[in-house]
Amino acid sequence: AGNKSIVVSGTSKSTMKVSGRVHVDAWGFDHDENINEIAANDNDESNRLGFRRLRFGVKGKIKDNMIYKIEMELAGGNDSEFRDAFLGWTDLPYLGEVLLGNQKRPYGLDHLNSSRYNVFIERPFVIEAFNEDARRLGLQSYGVSDNQAWNWRYGVFNGRNVQDEGNYVGDHLQLEFAGRLANTIWYDQTSGGRGYAHWAISGTHSDVSTNQSRDADGNEDDGALAESRFRTRPEGRTAGTRWLDTGRIDGLDYYNILGLETVVNLGALQFVGEYQSNWGERNGFEDVHLHGAYGYVSYFLTGEHIPWDRESGTLGRVKPFENFWLVDTAGGGRSAGWGAWQIAARLSYADFSDEDVTGGEAESLTLGLNWHWNTNARMQFNYITGNIENRTDLVGQGDYDIYGARFMVDF
Amino acid sequence: AGNKSIVVSGTSKSTMKVSGRVHVDAWGFDHDENINEIAANDNDESNRLGFRRLRFGVKGKIKDNMIYKIEMELAGGNDSEFRDAFLGWTDLPYLGEVLLGNQKRPYGLDHLNSSRYNVFIERPFVIEAFNEDARRLGLQSYGVSDNQAWNWRYGVFNGRNVQDEGNYVGDHLQLEFAGRLANTIWYDQTSGGRGYAHWAISGTHSDVSTNQSRDADGNEDDGALAESRFRTRPEGRTAGTRWLDTGRIDGLDYYNILGLETVVNLGALQFVGEYQSNWGERNGFEDVHLHGAYGYVSYFLTGEHIPWDRESGTLGRVKPFENFWLVDTAGGGRSAGWGAWQIAARLSYADFSDEDVTGGEAESLTLGLNWHWNTNARMQFNYITGNIENRTDLVGQGDYDIYGARFMVDF
Amino acid sequence: AGNKSIVVSGTSKSTMKVSGRVHVDAWGFDHDENINEIAANDNDESNRLGFRRLRFGVKGKIKDNMIYKIEMELAGGNDSEFRDAFLGWTDLPYLGEVLLGNQKRPYGLDHLNSSRYNVFIERPFVIEAFNEDARRLGLQSYGVSDNQAWNWRYGVFNGRNVQDEGNYVGDHLQLEFAGRLANTIWYDQTSGGRGYAHWAISGTHSDVSTNQSRDADGNEDDGALAESRFRTRPEGRTAGTRWLDTGRIDGLDYYNILGLETVVNLGALQFVGEYQSNWGERNGFEDVHLHGAYGYVSYFLTGEHIPWDRESGTLGRVKPFENFWLVDTAGGGRSAGWGAWQIAARLSYADFSDEDVTGGEAESLTLGLNWHWNTNARMQFNYITGNIENRTDLVGQGDYDIYGARFMVDF
Repeated sequence: AGNKSIVVSGTSKSTMKVSGRVHVDAWGFDHDENINEIAANDNDESNRLGFRRLRFGVKGKIKDNMIYKIEMELAGGNDSEFRDAFLGWTDLPYLGEVLLGNQKRPYGLDHLNSSRYNVFIERPFVIEAFNEDARRLGLQSYGVSDNQAWNWRYGVFNGRNVQDEGNYVGDHLQLEFAGRLANTIWYDQTSGGRGYAHWAISGTHSDVSTNQSRDADGNEDDGALAESRFRTRPEGRTAGTRWLDTGRIDGLDYYNILGLETVVNLGALQFVGEYQSNWGERNGFEDVHLHGAYGYVSYFLTGEHIPWDRESGTLGRVKPFENFWLVDTAGGGRSAGWGAWQIAARLSYADFSDEDVTGGEAESLTLGLNWHWNTNARMQFNYITGNIENRTDLVGQGDYDIYGARFMVDF
Repeated sequence: AGNKSIVVSGTSKSTMKVSGRVHVDAWGFDHDENINEIAANDNDESNRLGFRRLRFGVKGKIKDNMIYKIEMELAGGNDSEFRDAFLGWTDLPYLGEVLLGNQKRPYGLDHLNSSRYNVFIERPFVIEAFNEDARRLGLQSYGVSDNQAWNWRYGVFNGRNVQDEGNYVGDHLQLEFAGRLANTIWYDQTSGGRGYAHWAISGTHSDVSTNQSRDADGNEDDGALAESRFRTRPEGRTAGTRWLDTGRIDGLDYYNILGLETVVNLGALQFVGEYQSNWGERNGFEDVHLHGAYGYVSYFLTGEHIPWDRESGTLGRVKPFENFWLVDTAGGGRSAGWGAWQIAARLSYADFSDEDVTGGEAESLTLGLNWHWNTNARMQFNYITGNIENRTDLVGQGDYDIYGARFMVDF
Repeated sequence: AGNKSIVVSGTSKSTMKVSGRVHVDAWGFDHDENINEIAANDNDESNRLGFRRLRFGVKGKIKDNMIYKIEMELAGGNDSEFRDAFLGWTDLPYLGEVLLGNQKRPYGLDHLNSSRYNVFIERPFVIEAFNEDARRLGLQSYGVSDNQAWNWRYGVFNGRNVQDEGNYVGDHLQLEFAGRLANTIWYDQTSGGRGYAHWAISGTHSDVSTNQSRDADGNEDDGALAESRFRTRPEGRTAGTRWLDTGRIDGLDYYNILGLETVVNLGALQFVGEYQSNWGERNGFEDVHLHGAYGYVSYFLTGEHIPWDRESGTLGRVKPFENFWLVDTAGGGRSAGWGAWQIAARLSYADFSDEDVTGGEAESLTLGLNWHWNTNARMQFNYITGNIENRTDLVGQGDYDIYGARFMVDF
């Protein structure tokens, strides 16, 4: 039987790798009355149990120098979506690797890091708000210098998130040009990469429709509603309502985002910081300036380090010195390993209120504990305390505390 | 080409097995006018052709002692859902295997049996009603004694079916504790398991919200509608409407289910019976008692037997003595095998009407014929005759006949 | 690690092949005011960027002589659907291969051709209109003569497209009998199939419900709305609205379709033509006759040919003499290949207006350029110019131009 049950790809010209991930979350919320006004349906934000990610996908190579990937997200139940979905070419002169399809836009480190490797359960305000759901339909080139010191990616994207629709329909194409240039300025080869430093600059010039609403028949005038909204949750997984939300910004014609980021890693200790600034040019309204930043420090109590991927300028997969396991041995004894333990603290702020735009101003402190069971599984705990103000004209400052836990494997 | 097209899992630390099933059904209905009142939209129940299950999933091991599984159900077309979706640990001291995620609740044999192996096309009233769709988000431990005589599973679950939503949102967590203890009291090793006897006790203590309705804005008061409803179809696949349905039971605070089950297998002959009783404690209303049971006998005309899985206390995969096949041979002759033939009869009743609750009282007889083509494929025919009364205050007794056929493979 | 990460199928009795495709499209529209009246929501048809197909599926064999397939279409985002979904038997006497489940209805060459191999981006009017979305739930036999000169397929189908619903519900089963008999009258073995000629006859006798509408409660009277509608897009991918659409034809009781097709291939040059005629028998209304045809010529500038699959009577996979690639070699030089280049022109017409039915009369010319990068990837460009008249009583003739591009891989 053995050999016959081996799974093969559809044609002999293609290879295939099947991968996926399971992320199970629990969230609890404790907040002021003032937060009610901006949270789910004017009610307390309710506790939450369930799947954050249930992903499954295939990728591979096609002769001679092409690649493909399809990745599904099933955590929404009926609302299945796709994630990475592209075809591409590798080893092109000047362009390196070029991908066409749904892929991450290149602004900012934290969204380019995989959710499998990120230090905190959810991403910071500014990262999620300026690059909501990260992936867009686009054509992007990926390159790296021969000595791996420099890497870059740049491309043109459609501004709409089509992961749930599959297509963008509209005469205003809402195109943006975006790129990121990254430099690993220090990488300690002798320790196997336990020491490194990185910086990068990234950003976008994004042209958006000014079409704010649907007509009386429920149709969009030119089929394309303005992608001029920045919004995010409080760094924890709330229901549909985003606590920070500019709404569609009246008259926004285009916006420019500039991002700066740095990472310094010294063995078990890591420092990371990012700042992003967003200038919006408006027709018939005052221009607006939105911005935000975060910084975090993380430390392995058990001495491991977070590897660095010099080809993409992103965090790599942690390898515990000892896996977590606990089994009764055949001989009657017990054998155990305790995994890797990591602590972390993050400060984050966002200022999305300017002129008539009241997206909100927020500050947040997150304390994190990560228990890495093995290279493919870990448990995360986050305690978040923060406050929001200037979210609307009506609501004053609101404080909140959030408790989160995640169990995750990838395969 | 050959070797390069072999499919591999996403990381070298994980294994992967890909499996699925295709179930194609046809159903016809013939019933009294009285049944109209409780059936689909006050109309005759319409005939039905289509997919009952279109499943596809991956599962595997992660070093050192973890497992994962994701399983999709595509038979709903646009309404895709997940089924098993979990991560877990194996070989833990005291706890054995522990799974976290969406998995079957452990009350009653018939829902723990795979739909690939069950003797009848659809499950009995009481099994479906008290454990609707079986799977819930939970944390469950699975164990078996060294001699395989005893096996058990117990855990804590959230009461809501999230297969279509992915998450539970609500401050009342509607938690339940459920478990099953099973004993294979006789297993005839010498015949390779053609003779065995099993009994088990199972049940739950389930805490439910009393929130019956949404507020004027369409919101649930605490984000969690009461999971206090028991309902099911007439052991055949009707459209959305369940013919038996208590609705959300007013004031239900918690309920306790006790289930008793037994299996006796003598070669080609099998006897199975289950009884489940459900006591509901209510605030401001009289407590209610709902219950149901079924018993069946099945027999292989061709002499095979239904194997027993002593690790899980559930039915196993039937292996026909001779596969069904019918091919013209190269030499001009014809070669054929006729598969395995099995007949079965099931009696089932449910009493879901008590006090002010009028879920209905039903009796049903099902006659079944299963034609097993090979270990992975079979055809099933069911004729069902039954009646329902006390379904509402208004409708008297209604009789019905149902005809069903299923074609199925799994891989 | 290597060996352990090999993916295997769920049981040792089944084999598995995993395949899929990614099609990324861009469409632009330029048309008369008159077309507005029949296009999307009385507006200009908007430009379109996105996924046309994101498919992923598994198929394999089950011992001794069964097969299975499940294929998903993810290009709709939330609106996932299935495509091929069946179980079947091979090598049966008289019947050959028999499949039960969702599969293509056998009328007309162009829909039987895979979208991976078709010469133009979208299919002709008559093919799409008479066989909308092609696949139906049915039981179909597939056969081929020993010398491969003749092949045939015929079966019984339910008329409704259930790819998004999973099931058909209705007392009127709307069954149809359909078949296709194909003959490869010339096949030049010595050139490896660079020369061949084919003709086929196909058609259906289709019984439809006359139920035109839902009742006041939104229910269909017998659960089955009439499958008596023929509609299609302008051979380019517009939004939901079909520019040609008969609507549900009043009183249509059954319809008969007859299709004739031929292919002549001379090396790099291919001629293809199809004609289909549809006679509708109506109760209480005049019978109607709808019809359409297309013809195309295609030519490889680089000398390749389109292979012919004699077992199914459909187009095969093109194999470029030289793949497209462009890489910097280790030695500092550049190595390149330019793929295969193919041009094509198609004329198509449809007449779906007769008696009181005003589905529209359309003519269309499509010019195509296909750049085949390798056996599994290509780029397609189409320019379409056409006009529509008699679409409703109110609108005169409308002209339009459409520009389309597709990037595609399959694996």
